[in-house]
Amino acid sequence: MNKRQKSYLAASLAMAFLAVSVGAVAQQSAPAKPETLIKWRQSAFQVIGWNCGHIKQVLDGVYNKEEVVKSANAIAAISNLGLGSLFTTGTEQGKGWHETNAKPELFKEGSKVGEYAGNFVKEANELAKVSNSGDVAAVKSQFSKLTATCKSCHDDFRRKDS
Amino acid sequence: MNKRQKSYLAASLAMAFLAVSVGAVAQQSAPAKPETLIKWRQSAFQVIGWNCGHIKQVLDGVYNKEEVVKSANAIAAISNLGLGSLFTTGTEQGKGWHETNAKPELFKEGSKVGEYAGNFVKEANELAKVSNSGDVAAVKSQFSKLTATCKSCHDDFRRKDS
Repeated sequence: MNKRQKSYLAASLAMAFLAVSVGAVAQQSAPAKPETLIKWRQSAFQVIGWNCGHIKQVLDGVYNKEEVVKSANAIAAISNLGLGSLFTTGTEQGKGWHETNAKPELFKEGSKVGEYAGNFVKEANELAKVSNSGDVAAVKSQFSKLTATCKSCHDDFRRKDS
Repeated sequence: MNKRQKSYLAASLAMAFLAVSVGAVAQQSAPAKPETLIKWRQSAFQVIGWNCGHIKQVLDGVYNKEEVVKSANAIAAISNLGLGSLFTTGTEQGKGWHETNAKPELFKEGSKVGEYAGNFVKEANELAKVSNSGDVAAVKSQFSKLTATCKSCHDDFRRKDS
């Protein structure tokens, strides 16, 4: 893939993420309070974190294809929900289960959050596919790609003390 | 399906749920504290609730197949994680995001929780299938079957004040 194609792909992913988010916002967030949106996103990321931890445990220990498939499917399905719709204006601060750990930079125009989120969705869907192969090396490699997308977003947009 | 077949199906579902749970327990719960398990289950049910609410909103309003498919996929994928493994001995009481709302009866031997959970998994997977058809009447019917399984478990095993 050349540089131009890569750039086009990144832009497409970001736009796909935003489109999903906007669609979801229109139907979901009108009646939901900011505190509820924050609670939903904290819950979604908690389930994602639980399942990333579980996959790591299985990959570091006794490999079990079915366990990885189930966790990868859950992560992918949640990533496809348009989580961006839970980060709307009005949710920059506030308490869901706890005070939000999102940094103000996440909500600023021109932030890379759309690009990061697009990458997260892409790698999560890819892991769900690859996990079905049962090829441990391929699963490990794809899992690393997924967790790298988590890290890039956490580094830039999540408070250090979280 | 006759009565005997129904009884066999119910028993099979309950056993499938328990098998998944035990498998998950062996790999997941050893290092996880009760508070963590409670946090994970509260998060999982919060995401399920969010998406059930979203499906209801779409079915009551402007139907959008893709939105229902995404939410149904997330509910099904989470239901397949072996949530029973998050209700192990030691988690009868305790605080995840908040004090557990599970009633003591849930943890008693011979409780119907395995049967209820098996039904929930079955109806959630069926909704994910049916949602792809785009047949609104069929989706509404299947969604009612799913929420009935939520209600039966909440009625028996979740505190009223939750």
